[in-house]
Amino acid sequence: MTLKLHNFFRSSSSTRVRVALRLKSVPFDYVPYVLRNGETRRKPFLDLNPAALVPALELEDGRVLTQSLAIIEWLDETHPAPPLLPADAYGRARVRALAQTIACEIHPLNNLRVLQHLGQTFGADEAAQARWFEHWVTTSFDAIETSLARDPETGAFCHGDTPGLADICLYAQAWNNRRFSIDTSRWPVIDGIFRRLDAIAAFRDAAPDRQPDAA
Amino acid sequence: MTLKLHNFFRSSSSTRVRVALRLKSVPFDYVPYVLRNGETRRKPFLDLNPAALVPALELEDGRVLTQSLAIIEWLDETHPAPPLLPADAYGRARVRALAQTIACEIHPLNNLRVLQHLGQTFGADEAAQARWFEHWVTTSFDAIETSLARDPETGAFCHGDTPGLADICLYAQAWNNRRFSIDTSRWPVIDGIFRRLDAIAAFRDAAPDRQPDAA
Repeated sequence: MTLKLHNFFRSSSSTRVRVALRLKSVPFDYVPYVLRNGETRRKPFLDLNPAALVPALELEDGRVLTQSLAIIEWLDETHPAPPLLPADAYGRARVRALAQTIACEIHPLNNLRVLQHLGQTFGADEAAQARWFEHWVTTSFDAIETSLARDPETGAFCHGDTPGLADICLYAQAWNNRRFSIDTSRWPVIDGIFRRLDAIAAFRDAAPDRQPDAA
Repeated sequence: MTLKLHNFFRSSSSTRVRVALRLKSVPFDYVPYVLRNGETRRKPFLDLNPAALVPALELEDGRVLTQSLAIIEWLDETHPAPPLLPADAYGRARVRALAQTIACEIHPLNNLRVLQHLGQTFGADEAAQARWFEHWVTTSFDAIETSLARDPETGAFCHGDTPGLADICLYAQAWNNRRFSIDTSRWPVIDGIFRRLDAIAAFRDAAPDRQPDAA
């Protein structure tokens, strides 16, 4: 028995968990879902996660973890090497806040079900959905760029010279941005970090284009 | 010197941090902002948090923590009693996932700047904004109700019989729902937990209506 990752290649939150599993060298079975077909909104997936969202990590005893940041913190606690959070409380708070600025302020506004709901409710066409997507990316990437540029804790990566939880979220979001042709080079500090992450196999191999269900 | 909580009485993420500070019996100075006036989108607040979002917790040495869940985890690490997360890794993952289902899937879609943006971009009037708000609350509260009702770990509160991080998010969200006349009694397990939380002074005294800047 190994861990089963119920996920979708293009899902940014799925990408986060794939990176963390690879950084920790934890093997897992890849179980893909097609979100546009509604596969996560019906059984058997709803029994795994009533919130109908990927990723869901099925443990060896059948219990299921949901929400990418909660899954990654669980991985970090149960497989401590290499650590994904700093050793000090302030550093952990800083890294978690950067991660949550992406995971709470960008991604939830821009995932597939929200874009679909904008279309159904306000008649937002593809161009309007793309403007909505870019608005929320720009709002938070501008803020993150300012924080990273001024904070002495920023190094080669978001916090020092070792990739961690914030880098995982940043990397997955930058991949998501590409779908809407948002060029990360508008944010030079973020872009430098992204390029360094993209050279690390655990990140690159977890990216959407290298997954078995990639189109 | 004490901690300074930069916040807004009605902000759901501010309410979360107020509850956590009170549960930990940590004194703090209350620094209010008027969100509708744009006070958090200009200096001096932008120097505290370039993301222009409350809450921000200013530490005694001048460093600033942002993002409510990151702040609460910091509080839990630096002031361990009473704990806001279970002792076991699975329990912590379950509580964090419940908290994030509110903090990532409901709140970011429904905060003031998003409702304003819907008005500016799609001409959403108050009624349309209220339907949008209710849609995302219902989507995630339905899922949380299902999880709480079936999970053996659910007790008097979200996880066992001691209030923790998930309860803090649930309590703040239920207060937020009231502004849009969403009756939490539609979800009986959630409603029971909310009523028990509302009888605890640390929760009740942190609610929006008891803050110095309440209208």
